[in-house]
Amino acid sequence: MTYAQMPPAILTEELADLRRRYNDYRAMKLNLDMSRGKPGADQLALTQDMLGVISAPEDCIAENGFDCRNYGLPDGIPEAKRIFAEILDVPIKNIIIGGNSSLNLMYDEIARAMLYGTCDSHKPWSRYDSVTFICPVPGYDRHFAICETMGINMITVPMTGDGPDMDAVEELVSRDESVKGIWCVPKYSNPEGIVYSDDTIRRFASLKPKARDFRIFWDNAYIIHSINGDPACQLNLFTEAQKYGNDNLPLIFTSTSKISFPGSGLAVFAASDANIAQTKKMMSVMTIGYDKLNQLRHVRFFGSAACIYEHMKRHAEILRPKFETVLDEFEKLRPLDIAEWNRPDGGYFISINLGDGCASRVYTMTKDAGVTLTPAGATFPYGKDPRDRNLRIAPTYPSTAELKTAVEILCLCIRIVSAEKHISGIPYTKP
Amino acid sequence: MTYAQMPPAILTEELADLRRRYNDYRAMKLNLDMSRGKPGADQLALTQDMLGVISAPEDCIAENGFDCRNYGLPDGIPEAKRIFAEILDVPIKNIIIGGNSSLNLMYDEIARAMLYGTCDSHKPWSRYDSVTFICPVPGYDRHFAICETMGINMITVPMTGDGPDMDAVEELVSRDESVKGIWCVPKYSNPEGIVYSDDTIRRFASLKPKARDFRIFWDNAYIIHSINGDPACQLNLFTEAQKYGNDNLPLIFTSTSKISFPGSGLAVFAASDANIAQTKKMMSVMTIGYDKLNQLRHVRFFGSAACIYEHMKRHAEILRPKFETVLDEFEKLRPLDIAEWNRPDGGYFISINLGDGCASRVYTMTKDAGVTLTPAGATFPYGKDPRDRNLRIAPTYPSTAELKTAVEILCLCIRIVSAEKHISGIPYTKP
Repeated sequence: MTYAQMPPAILTEELADLRRRYNDYRAMKLNLDMSRGKPGADQLALTQDMLGVISAPEDCIAENGFDCRNYGLPDGIPEAKRIFAEILDVPIKNIIIGGNSSLNLMYDEIARAMLYGTCDSHKPWSRYDSVTFICPVPGYDRHFAICETMGINMITVPMTGDGPDMDAVEELVSRDESVKGIWCVPKYSNPEGIVYSDDTIRRFASLKPKARDFRIFWDNAYIIHSINGDPACQLNLFTEAQKYGNDNLPLIFTSTSKISFPGSGLAVFAASDANIAQTKKMMSVMTIGYDKLNQLRHVRFFGSAACIYEHMKRHAEILRPKFETVLDEFEKLRPLDIAEWNRPDGGYFISINLGDGCASRVYTMTKDAGVTLTPAGATFPYGKDPRDRNLRIAPTYPSTAELKTAVEILCLCIRIVSAEKHISGIPYTKP
Repeated sequence: MTYAQMPPAILTEELADLRRRYNDYRAMKLNLDMSRGKPGADQLALTQDMLGVISAPEDCIAENGFDCRNYGLPDGIPEAKRIFAEILDVPIKNIIIGGNSSLNLMYDEIARAMLYGTCDSHKPWSRYDSVTFICPVPGYDRHFAICETMGINMITVPMTGDGPDMDAVEELVSRDESVKGIWCVPKYSNPEGIVYSDDTIRRFASLKPKARDFRIFWDNAYIIHSINGDPACQLNLFTEAQKYGNDNLPLIFTSTSKISFPGSGLAVFAASDANIAQTKKMMSVMTIGYDKLNQLRHVRFFGSAACIYEHMKRHAEILRPKFETVLDEFEKLRPLDIAEWNRPDGGYFISINLGDGCASRVYTMTKDAGVTLTPAGATFPYGKDPRDRNLRIAPTYPSTAELKTAVEILCLCIRIVSAEKHISGIPYTKP
């Protein structure tokens, strides 16, 4: 029986029972964290041997004879470029290997566009009265934080099972010259785990933006991060965009933050010849170059793109039971008709929608019981979910045992808040 | 006898002989590089064992229990902060440990000031009609390149033996609100190796800029990089500025690029509480944090600030003969009265002034004979030395034998170009 169908007296009884159980958990003074997409210690251990692969002087020489201990090669060593060119399926010349943070590469691209403009800009973006980015929601809070900090307006478009609502995107980009970008996590999207369909990608590739310096920020953070079987096949935006003469449209990012080490991985940027030339030119003013010894460590440890794919299977084995733990517990909510959630095949998150107005109360209750979630609203620009219904679950960091307890508490809170809503008589919008 | 005193016939004969020797060198088709301040392979070897100090999982834990393989601690691990707090003589709370490039930290500070303003700004610097930086000359080309790229005007002030001409600096900062910064390399300055005097530092500390968001970019790149004995003692600008209520004035940078590895060192930022708070806030939007495993590598390898000082003595032993090789060869020019140069006690460069209008011709002739110098003019904004007389010599990268040949060729070219000038009868301004 759903909560909506449940007679008030029974629901009240149920609520009392749920509250008792909640208080028992609260008395345990737990401290569990499901807030960020952090790999667990068992995942970090998979890459441990990387730290020892570079030690002697001869280990420090790149295949082109370059001594990676010294200055130089600001766009990366050739052997690292080759591996990521294969993973991203773009030519080697269109790759730059960055430091340890792809977020930093994205930020830098936007900061440069603001300060100097892109290779297609009439003027720096900061010279416009306003600049707007399109933000598919729910989305990644750190993308939105960059826009907010830079004073870039954000217009949301809803996500569908195939990616962003492309009718809305096409309408927005054609609207005016100040619409300059869109944030995308095209595979196993953050937080819903959605894989953009080929049709969506074709529509991105063939966009006709009013602004000729419009850019698609294609954060392919989870490009090979499947948890069930092989990574999803997906059209290549880089190649597709060329078919429509839109070579400069996509700016593609990925990293090994969730392949090797989150704090000490490699970030990668891929884009058209013109974009890469512009980035290299401005990058050479910004930095003496990135850490090439760490690039060598990755190359020597993994050896090839194929070996990275194998490595990802080991991550998947660790992650699959964690995702299943969350989903199994969520499944118990299904008969109550108080939540909807996705069942991702990869990525780092599970997204759940509750009844309108429930998310922030669930977040607070969960927190009071010692379970930290990503704050309600974080998946929307400015941290404001207009329906206050979405929560992002990051199941990777806790152990499976801790996770089970954390999700039990979360589900208990979802039930309490939903039951309270139903009893209160306030009109309840189903998730 | 100086070239000026030499009878034309003898000078002409001398010139013919010099040209013969120059052509002999040219026939050797050499390829020698004295262009950048790059440590040599023997210096890199001093730090080789650092690469092996982190390997097991337990090696990756910071003293506060933090797993450095994972996300977090965006401002650095405490043990790394402690070491650099000691070297810079500032409180630990005023330190941020960055990535591998202090240039990147400087660029980011300016980019943020342009986009958002500093903690003392009325508005972002990019909102001014023009922004001006004061550039002591000769100076560091990469500092000037940042200003040029950002569209920041550069006004030069001459260097003296005590640092920048402070009368000129004081006058300029008091002039108008758009004068926002000054570039300084306070110890073993690039390129002259000048150590700013305590009086200069006191005058910096007590500046009364018209712009309340004026900043001193204090690039202490060579703070412990002496080659003759202990590093020079110098007043601490951080502490001095506080005495005048100018806490927010200095932004202090250093790095281990010339202590450990140029490509894989640590960059460090130090500033007042308010500056650090602002930087941390904006930095957290820009990046997921810097590479903490590399911070641990440095801490474990060096152990303490005292051990870094010892390490620098080993660098000095390698560098001293290289500097002496250049200076010994320069000494042979002294009787001719055609050049003036410094005799630095530290840093990475030797600066030489020739007669007006000689530097770019010497650069080209030297290059044609297979010896690459930093381009003439590079030590001035926009690469334009108004007197075309300054050259920067970077003696560290070639072996001592290669260096000797390279400097012989350089001196030969200086003599040829100077002799030509004297013979031509064009008025010759002494260096």
